[in-house]
Amino acid sequence: MLLKVKDVTEVLEIMEEQFPVNTKDCEKVRLLDAVGRITAAHIKAAADVPGFDKSVVDGYAVKARDTFGASDSLPALLEKAGEVLIGKEAVFEIKEGGCAYVPTGGMLPLGSDAVVMVEDTEDLGSETIAVYRPVGPWQNTIRRGEDVSAGQVVLKRGTNLKPHHVGVMASLGLEWVEVIRKPRVFIVSTGDELIPPGKELRPGGIWDINSYSLAAAVLEDGGIPMLGGIVRDDRAAIRTKIEKALEDSDLILVSGGSSAGTRDYTAAIIDDLGRPGVLVHGISIKPGKPTIIGSVQGKPVIGMPGQPVSSLVVYRVVVSPLIRRMAGLDQGQKEPVKAVCDENYYSAPGREEYLMVTVYRAEDGKMHARPVPGKSGMITTMSGANGMIVIPKNREGLYKDEKAEVILL
Amino acid sequence: MLLKVKDVTEVLEIMEEQFPVNTKDCEKVRLLDAVGRITAAHIKAAADVPGFDKSVVDGYAVKARDTFGASDSLPALLEKAGEVLIGKEAVFEIKEGGCAYVPTGGMLPLGSDAVVMVEDTEDLGSETIAVYRPVGPWQNTIRRGEDVSAGQVVLKRGTNLKPHHVGVMASLGLEWVEVIRKPRVFIVSTGDELIPPGKELRPGGIWDINSYSLAAAVLEDGGIPMLGGIVRDDRAAIRTKIEKALEDSDLILVSGGSSAGTRDYTAAIIDDLGRPGVLVHGISIKPGKPTIIGSVQGKPVIGMPGQPVSSLVVYRVVVSPLIRRMAGLDQGQKEPVKAVCDENYYSAPGREEYLMVTVYRAEDGKMHARPVPGKSGMITTMSGANGMIVIPKNREGLYKDEKAEVILL
Repeated sequence: MLLKVKDVTEVLEIMEEQFPVNTKDCEKVRLLDAVGRITAAHIKAAADVPGFDKSVVDGYAVKARDTFGASDSLPALLEKAGEVLIGKEAVFEIKEGGCAYVPTGGMLPLGSDAVVMVEDTEDLGSETIAVYRPVGPWQNTIRRGEDVSAGQVVLKRGTNLKPHHVGVMASLGLEWVEVIRKPRVFIVSTGDELIPPGKELRPGGIWDINSYSLAAAVLEDGGIPMLGGIVRDDRAAIRTKIEKALEDSDLILVSGGSSAGTRDYTAAIIDDLGRPGVLVHGISIKPGKPTIIGSVQGKPVIGMPGQPVSSLVVYRVVVSPLIRRMAGLDQGQKEPVKAVCDENYYSAPGREEYLMVTVYRAEDGKMHARPVPGKSGMITTMSGANGMIVIPKNREGLYKDEKAEVILL
Repeated sequence: MLLKVKDVTEVLEIMEEQFPVNTKDCEKVRLLDAVGRITAAHIKAAADVPGFDKSVVDGYAVKARDTFGASDSLPALLEKAGEVLIGKEAVFEIKEGGCAYVPTGGMLPLGSDAVVMVEDTEDLGSETIAVYRPVGPWQNTIRRGEDVSAGQVVLKRGTNLKPHHVGVMASLGLEWVEVIRKPRVFIVSTGDELIPPGKELRPGGIWDINSYSLAAAVLEDGGIPMLGGIVRDDRAAIRTKIEKALEDSDLILVSGGSSAGTRDYTAAIIDDLGRPGVLVHGISIKPGKPTIIGSVQGKPVIGMPGQPVSSLVVYRVVVSPLIRRMAGLDQGQKEPVKAVCDENYYSAPGREEYLMVTVYRAEDGKMHARPVPGKSGMITTMSGANGMIVIPKNREGLYKDEKAEVILL
């Protein structure tokens, strides 16, 4: 089957349509494991916050009307009925003409409806407190449920949980929170030349790069990478690996070996395994053209280019938006930055082109992008880059001093 | 001892001076655990990359001079001496007039010094290959060590490891990497009213918020939070807790209870435990003035305000830069964004003021900041905010439509 090479935009649309996200797929985690996770449901308060009428100052709980008209020359003289301790129930009641000491955060005793700041009072001894200033009803207090009332939605579904949200959940007494489950991404590298890092290199062999850079990128995007290891360039072996992976992962990345054959295996296997099979066979992007996107049992199976830089480009442009969507993170890819080109960049029109660059803040205060020296696709290019500059499809290049979009690595 | 309230700038300077970072404090982690960590040493290649002269195309390895002058009308006829398999050693030698098939990424056989692309050749049978185009020496190859030579620094010390760096390390065969150790941050909340989330609330009690929001913030900044639990407002109990914490943590945060007494306990305990003791007692910042910074056995002990929003402000402005420095992350706090004020903000000059705001991209394409409704310091304020707008020390407020700095939460 011969399929037409597709534009990036078209590919992203196909993926959104074919792989709708199941937002009901969730799990419970403890508060501190929730940082950076996405709430799977609205979070509601089980009870009022605060749970009791509370003083916001150190002072005396009173009946407000007992202080009306109080002044320096004519203080209201109130009888001290007791003292509220922080964190304890106020077990006595304030009667007319009575008052009680309350610390900041302390519970207002029954019968009181305001707090006079301690600075506006004087302890005259013999349980008599002089109040030199009037207070209005509920002055210097927070009433029960004034902050949050029972049943109120405090955090919406889809919230990306930050430290202050964790504080909010703690304030509701929550120990667990329901968040969107992380997508499990199975990664397998194909190629007879590949050897896992840490093992000794045999002559003619190279260490497997893509399993690790892809797994690291999946981690960054809120997924769980499942390292499927290295499989040789053999149709049956690759098929077995993919079939097995379909059982317990949500997305499969097959990183191609250098061999020209592997690519065709991946497409053929995807078509073998079920409908609709291969959706995209080739993307008009450089580098990264030989990318295959298929759907098997409703799960995305993606054949990635074997060249390490191509693999990163395709991951960032095509795969990352899907994984982030599955993880409940913002829909698109990370927002690109604008940077001034330090040089002219040339490109062929008709395809999007990505070049490794170093982005830095120049003396003019602006972000600039300079090309990374070295042949494209080499390790030194990857180690020196911190971004990829985008040359749009309809352009033949970018001019020096022009502002362009850069996707940060 | 009465200490003068200090400016934020002054406080940050004192902390940088008093708490220099020990960059030799490192640990080894596996490649995939290294994402987001900081390299503790230069990473050098142990061997050449590639480790052998390699073809970058599918074609025939030749002696370049044997192809000189070859053309469509007068091809060079070479004898096929064998075929190199991907990932295998090329065990034969190319003699004058000989050639061998090599796949992309395959090893060049001894004696060959260039590769002719397969498109420029024809297999005439009987082991004879016609070459229709000349190649120059080392054309279509990458030579051993051309990408990286043994001993070359590939990633510098202090690199914040991204997925592509993980790929670079994998390409060198590394399984482990030495990174800066995460600072262990001990967090204890003081207050007789506090109850851990998940436990039932008793009358007058509130759930402990700060232990969790601070721990979450420490996680985000690359530290390891150690939850020390809740300790009652009691000098001996707090002192015991701090002494114990000094044994196995790098930094101690003591979150103050609502009680006015606790603050003084913390300062007194810090001074008791050793020189130089309390360095800062009060910061000209709102909210967050009652902050204490001390040094005990060279370790920072910080008394944080008990009010949850104040606690977050002080964390972000004063504590976060220190923890990020200890974790090897960029020196300062996360870079603030610029946003247009949707309203006037009032403030008293002489102190920096932080207000909870919602930052959003408005229809004009610019970032805007609008205040979060509700009394300051309430939970609803925290849940609705995604940033803190900064009113500088010398200003009495910010004007509507003015651009101001916002620290994202």
